Order: sequence, then C-alpha cells, then structure tokens
Amino acid sequence: MNGADALIETLIDNDVTACFANPGTSEMQFVSALDRQPRMRPVLCLFEGVVTGAADGYGRVAGKPACTLLHLGPGYGNGVANLHNARRAFTPIVNVIGDHATYHRQYDAPLNSDIKALASVNSVWVKSAESPDEVAALAAEAVGASFGPPGGSASLILPADCAWLPVTTTSRPKAQRNGKRAVAGETIESIARKIRSAKKPVIFVGQGAGATEAGVSAAGRLAAAGVRPLAETFQGRIGRGAGRFLPDRMMYFAEQAVEDLAGVDLMVLVESPPPAAFFAYPGRPSLLAPEGGCETLTLAEREEDGAAAMDALADALGAPASGPLQELARPEARTGALTPSSAGAGIGRHLPEGAIVCDDAVTASQPILNNTRGCPPHDWLALTGGAIGLGIPMAVGAAVAGAGRKVVSLNGDGAAMYTPQALWTLAREALDVTVVIFANRNYRVLNIELTRTGAGNPGPAASKLLSLDDPAIDWVSLAKGQGVPAVRCDTADSFDAAFARAMAEPGPKLIEAALP
Amino acid sequence: MNGADALIETLIDNDVTACFANPGTSEMQFVSALDRQPRMRPVLCLFEGVVTGAADGYGRVAGKPACTLLHLGPGYGNGVANLHNARRAFTPIVNVIGDHATYHRQYDAPLNSDIKALASVNSVWVKSAESPDEVAALAAEAVGASFGPPGGSASLILPADCAWLPVTTTSRPKAQRNGKRAVAGETIESIARKIRSAKKPVIFVGQGAGATEAGVSAAGRLAAAGVRPLAETFQGRIGRGAGRFLPDRMMYFAEQAVEDLAGVDLMVLVESPPPAAFFAYPGRPSLLAPEGGCETLTLAEREEDGAAAMDALADALGAPASGPLQELARPEARTGALTPSSAGAGIGRHLPEGAIVCDDAVTASQPILNNTRGCPPHDWLALTGGAIGLGIPMAVGAAVAGAGRKVVSLNGDGAAMYTPQALWTLAREALDVTVVIFANRNYRVLNIELTRTGAGNPGPAASKLLSLDDPAIDWVSLAKGQGVPAVRCDTADSFDAAFARAMAEPGPKLIEAALP
Repeated sequence: MNGADALIETLIDNDVTACFANPGTSEMQFVSALDRQPRMRPVLCLFEGVVTGAADGYGRVAGKPACTLLHLGPGYGNGVANLHNARRAFTPIVNVIGDHATYHRQYDAPLNSDIKALASVNSVWVKSAESPDEVAALAAEAVGASFGPPGGSASLILPADCAWLPVTTTSRPKAQRNGKRAVAGETIESIARKIRSAKKPVIFVGQGAGATEAGVSAAGRLAAAGVRPLAETFQGRIGRGAGRFLPDRMMYFAEQAVEDLAGVDLMVLVESPPPAAFFAYPGRPSLLAPEGGCETLTLAEREEDGAAAMDALADALGAPASGPLQELARPEARTGALTPSSAGAGIGRHLPEGAIVCDDAVTASQPILNNTRGCPPHDWLALTGGAIGLGIPMAVGAAVAGAGRKVVSLNGDGAAMYTPQALWTLAREALDVTVVIFANRNYRVLNIELTRTGAGNPGPAASKLLSLDDPAIDWVSLAKGQGVPAVRCDTADSFDAAFARAMAEPGPKLIEAALP
Repeated sequence: MNGADALIETLIDNDVTACFANPGTSEMQFVSALDRQPRMRPVLCLFEGVVTGAADGYGRVAGKPACTLLHLGPGYGNGVANLHNARRAFTPIVNVIGDHATYHRQYDAPLNSDIKALASVNSVWVKSAESPDEVAALAAEAVGASFGPPGGSASLILPADCAWLPVTTTSRPKAQRNGKRAVAGETIESIARKIRSAKKPVIFVGQGAGATEAGVSAAGRLAAAGVRPLAETFQGRIGRGAGRFLPDRMMYFAEQAVEDLAGVDLMVLVESPPPAAFFAYPGRPSLLAPEGGCETLTLAEREEDGAAAMDALADALGAPASGPLQELARPEARTGALTPSSAGAGIGRHLPEGAIVCDDAVTASQPILNNTRGCPPHDWLALTGGAIGLGIPMAVGAAVAGAGRKVVSLNGDGAAMYTPQALWTLAREALDVTVVIFANRNYRVLNIELTRTGAGNPGPAASKLLSLDDPAIDWVSLAKGQGVPAVRCDTADSFDAAFARAMAEPGPKLIEAALP
C-alpha cells in the first residue's frame, strides 16, 4: 500500500469514480494503482485540454468531481484553458498533478516548473503532498474544497516519491462539505419591497442558481410575479425544454444588452457581481445595467443559496407556484441551404428527451438555441469562460457522467480545431456522442468583432488571420482517422436526415455541417 | 497611429519580423495594424501550442525572436507547454498577450484571469502596458529582455485600449542588448590546472554554449586535449554532421549516465548547473556525477560566454586548433521490417545538407541520431523541456526562419497527437517540411518507465492508459484532412523511397512510419 493507493482509495471513498488522464513518468505509480482499484474508471485523453474539458463536462452533469491526472507543470499548462472555463462554471474538479520526487525538485530537472503558481490562477485550492502519509488527508480536503461553495478546481500536487513510498496510515478521511448559507429573511423582505415599488425590475441569475432546477423554477415564479429573470449569457448548465421555465439570456453584445435593459430601474443579483460586457469596445459601456436610474441590489452572494432565496422572494411577492412553462413544440422540416438556422431546425426536430447539449458553436449557437426551446427536457452546457475548444472534450465527460443519455456536441470549426484529438477518446470509450461541426471556414465572430472594435475592414494580413480556408479542413477525414464515423452535409434536408440517424443509433458520430 | 501600430513598428525596427498568431477579439487592433505593416509576416496557427512551439523553432534557428499573438490568459495557457520547452532552450521570444481594456479588467468579465501569474512561470520578463504611449518603449524592452543572456520569453500584456487608442509619441526605441560576460582569465587558468592533474576529466556543455558553432568547435579542441565533452541530452540546437565535431550526449536514463561517468574525477560545467536525472527513480541518484571522488567546477555561468571560455581553456591546455571531425558517411540501404533503426537509415541516406531536424521522436530518436552522424552538415533541434507536442509546431517556425532549408520533423505518435493542428499551418504556408510520425500505437517510453519506477507490469487499467491502439490512428487521414499530402510505410524499403521523394520535392509532406 503506497501513497498512490491511499490517494485512489480516498477518492473512491469520497465518490470520485472517474479519472480523465494523460499520464507521464511521474504518474506511473498512480496508473499502476488504478489496476488495484476497479471502481475508478480511467479514461485516456491524448491531450490535457481534453482531460480538463472532460472533467468540466463530467462535473457539470454529475454534480460531483472527477479527478484528472496531469503530468507536471506543462501537463497542467495544457489543461489551463478548459480549467478556466470550469472556473467560470464553478465546476467541482480534483486535479492530481504529478511532480518530481520531493528531493529531486531542487535540481531543476528539465520538466521542473512552478506548478503552484500556474495552478493558483484557476484553482480554489492548491496544495502539494510532502510525504506519502499526507496524501489521503489532502485528497479528502481537495474533494471538499472542490464543492466550494461555489465550487471549482482543487489541485493536488503529487510528488513521485509521495506516490511510490509506502504509507503507514490506513485512515481514508471523508471530505468536509460546506453547504450554501441561507440568505437572511430581512434581505428577502427588503428586496421584495424594492421590487414592489420598481417600474421595471429584473433579476439576474448567476451560474450557481441558474444551474439548478430549483433556481430556474423559482425564476419562473418571479417572472409570473412581474420580475423579469435574465440568465447568464453562457450558463454552465441549464435545464430547458418542454415543461420548464426558460429565462431569457443576457445579450452577448453590449449594445444589444443595453437596449434590452433600457428602462430597467432595479436589478437584483443572484450569485453574481453586476453583469459586465464580455469585451470592452471603444465608446461603449462596460457594465450592462442602465447608467443612472437603475438600483442594483444583491439577493444572494456566491456562497449563498440563491435558488432558495429566489423561491422565498417569490413567496414574499405572492407569486404563483409555477411560472410560465414552455410547451412541447418542435420546428418544421426545412429544405434548401444549410445554415445555422436550418441546421438548428434539424436538431430541434430530433433532439431526444434527456439529451445533454455541449455548446461551443460560437456564431452558430443562437439559431440552435432558438430551435430547441420546445424540445423535450434536456440540459444545455455552454462555454462559460470564452476559451474555445471545450465542445468535444466537454462531451467526453458529459457522456461518461450521463451514463446512457445522448450527448450532442456543437462546435464551430475554429473552436473544434483546438482539441480535435478529443474525437479519439469518443471512439476509444464508444461514447454516445454526436459531434456537429459548423464549418464556415472562418473565425466568423472575429470578422464581426473586427468592425465592432473599430479596427475597420480586414486587409490581406487580417483576412489571412481570420480565415480557415486555404486549405479547407476535411472534418470527415479527421474523424475517420480517429475511428469516428462521419458524414458531410451541405443541405438542410441531408443534415436533418443525418442528425435523425445519429439520434437513433448509439455511439460516436460526427456530422460536418458545411455552411455556405 | 494607435498603440497597435506603435507596437508593430517598434518590433519591426528591432528586427522582429515574424508573428505566429491565434488572435481573438481583444487582439483585433493588432491584426488590423498588420495590414499597415507588410514587413511583419503573419502566420496563423489554429491553436496556441502551435503558436508558441513555432516561435521556439523560429528563435532557435534565427537567433532572434519572433512575436506571438495570444488571446488573454486562456490563450497564453494553451501555449504554456511549448513555452516551457522554449524556456529550457533559452529561446528568445516576444509574447504579445491581448488583455481586456484597462478599465474593463475590474469587472472580471468571463475571459479575465491573472495573466501575470500565469506568464511569470515561463517568462524572463512580464509587463503590462497601461497606456498606449507606453507600448513602444515596452516593446523594445521586451525584445532586449528576450535576448537575455541567457534568453527566454518576454511577455508583453497589451490591454485592448492600449492598442486602439492613439499614441502621441513617435519614438520607436531600440532594444538594449546585454552581451555575455567574459569569463575571468584566472578561472580558466585555475580550471586548466585542475584538468592537468585530473585522471578522467569531463566538460559538460550546457544549452547556451552547445547551441553555437564556436562552442561545439571548442568542445572538439578540448576532446583532442583529453577532456571528454558531454552535451546536454536534449540540446535546443546543435550543428552536427560531416566536418563538425560531435560531442557525446549525456545519457537519458540515470543508471546509464552513472555507468558512463564511472571514474570521472573532475566535471567542469559550462553554462549549466550540475546535471541531474530527467526523473527521480526509487533507489537511484538524482545527480549524475559520481558520488564522492568527483570534483565539480564551473567554467562559465549562464550569463557568461562559455564558448569563448572553452576556447581559451583549450589554448591553456595546448590543444590543437581543431578536434576530431566527423567524416561524411551515410548508412547502407536497409530492407525488411520498418523499425526506428531502419527508418533512421532511410533518413541518414537522404538528409540533405543544411537540413533542420526537429526531434520529438521520443523512443525512436536515438536510432535516428545514430544514423545521421555522418550526414552533410545539418542542425538538430531537440525537445528541451520534456513537454511532448513540440515536433510539428517547432518545424513550422524553423521553416519560416530557415527560408529555403529543408525541415524534417520527427514525432512519436503520442507526441504528435498533442498538436496535430500544426499540420494545417504547414499546408497554409506551403512550408518545406517533411513530417515523420513513428506510429507504434503506444506511449512506449511509459511502458519502459512503468517498470523503472517500480510500478510493476501493467494490468488492464494501466494498459488502457499506455496504449494508443483501439482505435489505431490513421495519420494519412489526419494529414490529408488538413491539406498535407501523406503516405503510410511499413517496410524499410518503402520508407526509404518515400523519404527520398520527400527530400527531393519541396512542400509539406507526412510519412506515417507504421512500426510493428
């Protein structure tokens, strides 16, 4: 029984049962210990950005952490971008980062670097074991820390000797979980009074509350009581579809958000700071609430139970037991050109009940959201941190956590090229994931942003940096080369048929939606 | 004239003329400014690990920095692993990292993170502009810092408003470059005396001196004078081949290095700390010099001119003007099974004069090194930091810097799957790069290391994490899907023919060397 065994036993005893891994030499003891612990499911990913994106998807769906296995600073570094996304979704994750043996670090061997400094940026907790007997206690502490509230990555650095040396303790401690604090009754009463005297109140529902059924349901009650709920533009997870209340999203572009919020005189915040524009633009405001004349109040901090507070607020306002619920309605069949909108219709016509949608579709996303509002109940997982390249990795983890639920991964072609090796893990694990690539051969959003930032029209150099043409990427080849069956569609009809087939058959599939 | 224009003008005035880029919204002003500066070559990479690996390859070949263009913390994060490799090669690089507008950072928008903390780990210099008028001076400072000595990444954070606002200064300052300090004559004399009285002296040549013609030539003179030169196991760049002295490399595995160094009673260090094992292993030493009975002396620190000091040391020892030089000799043609050794013969038979070899071939590397010793003069660029996934990105940059020199990129299949989207940039830029993928469908080095770390034989879970089979990756599909012509070879003869063809024709090619 060595430190690696103690680590994995403690993780399993704390219900951490999936490990997304890209190991190296310093993690060999952990890998070997997995052979002695069949209750931990190891999933090999061929790049650490896939590892961490999968852990994010898993945590969002399972509501508990998976562990990652990463190889020193560079391995962690490769996972930084998707851990940034996970940080913005408050996803519980336990990172196990292998390091040089404690006594070897002083010699600054080639793979040595300051792992703590790297990991601190996107972690809620970072500690290194210094002896094998510390490992079990630290593992339990990491699991507890990952739940927050509000939750995030806990990064446990595991020097190789702490893994290979024998342990003398047999204790496998339980993680301490801190619940969310209740919001004081006076706060709720006071905000209810403000709402009653407001002309146009909105309630902005942040990531934590927006991810729960209770939060969305309470938001619906508030809508029925005359308070307009607005969800995050990019909500880590939201249950939507028929029979559920569907809040509007905060608009992405600042000027649209400002227009949408015109006349609002009260903004109530739930588990969020005041909403800000995704980017700043010359001459446009950073904060989205109207300047002057709009009071901003906080109903619940991130560590507080915003869903329960919204429900209590709805009671205080005399709201009905339920808000307006979405009716079951699927789009009509479309023919002709394949566009994000007609592809969205195909998706909306066939998305099955219980599906999990992993959305990294960038400019193609909104038309698909519009076309799936009335689908049977499903979950939607968005790109929370703006670091593209999450769509396929997140689907890996969502499928492992979803155990039988159909997963649909929506991706811009530019985004999907960040982590194309995630396709291999779909094939290896035979995951029930349909990957759609919206191939417009462009960083289309940047062509829009180039104008909006006042940078003008693209000349030859700028065009070269915004276009993915020359050569065009053949997604069918990239998928088949990694064992994923694939098809290309360039009409609404053929896309509809391909998507319907993919929904009817289990296993990984890729559809290249070749846009004009 | 805005901050972005001032930045690019200053970079160009300081001879920074290549920009490897993966831009986002906050970098649109920089992208637009490139249209006004045709002397800067923009190269689009579809992932930031390709951007930074290309900048590393460029810097190693050109001896001056390229600039990167990266999108906030997550974009920089995706580039961390190859910047780690660049740090270990002391490669000059100027990172331009776009950030939110200065006034927007306080609102913690989704893409916000602590860029300085992330960048500090692998940078020799990190600063953020706070106004557009600072940008030009900071750009010059960054270029100067990137040269060191000993050189590295200088990371300039560029808030969006510092790029889009007008500048009032027209000054485009020149970078201050610090030369390497000369080693004191007494140090050289003192070490010469120690060498004269040593029985088995070695001189360990670190990255800086080992990368120069002068350093390798002086090492050869010392060899002729009875001091055995040993180069880094993974030298960032080394000139080798016919007519040059070729030092032995420090052995990779600690026990082999210890055996190789048995009896050594004096180790002289040039621009390096005492050599340490790549990894620690149970019961094996961390430091490679013999324990007891071996004195270690430093001839030159990293900031000192080790090559000149070695030459002066050779003079003091009465060494001849030249050491033993490699004769021109190519391997015999091989037939039968394709192995790293027979593939190495094919490479050794056809590698052209002036070629640049980018080596991320892991377990396949040594047989190829053995087979190319006597090739016409060429440069070899190794994986300095142990973060696999550098081989194809580094070739992108080497080809841009090499301007007409043939580039050969050697990759393990596991390594190449970290950054397969680098192939697209080869096609886009029509770079003269031949990519060889050694496909053993395994993290073979980890199968070796699993035993060496005492972790035992792999069971089902461990085997699953070390194997790349199931599904096998079809590299021909991955290459063709990104516009790179490709062929698969599984015999020594067919590989020899394919490699010969690739050397004779310009443009990107991929050869999948399917190993048994």
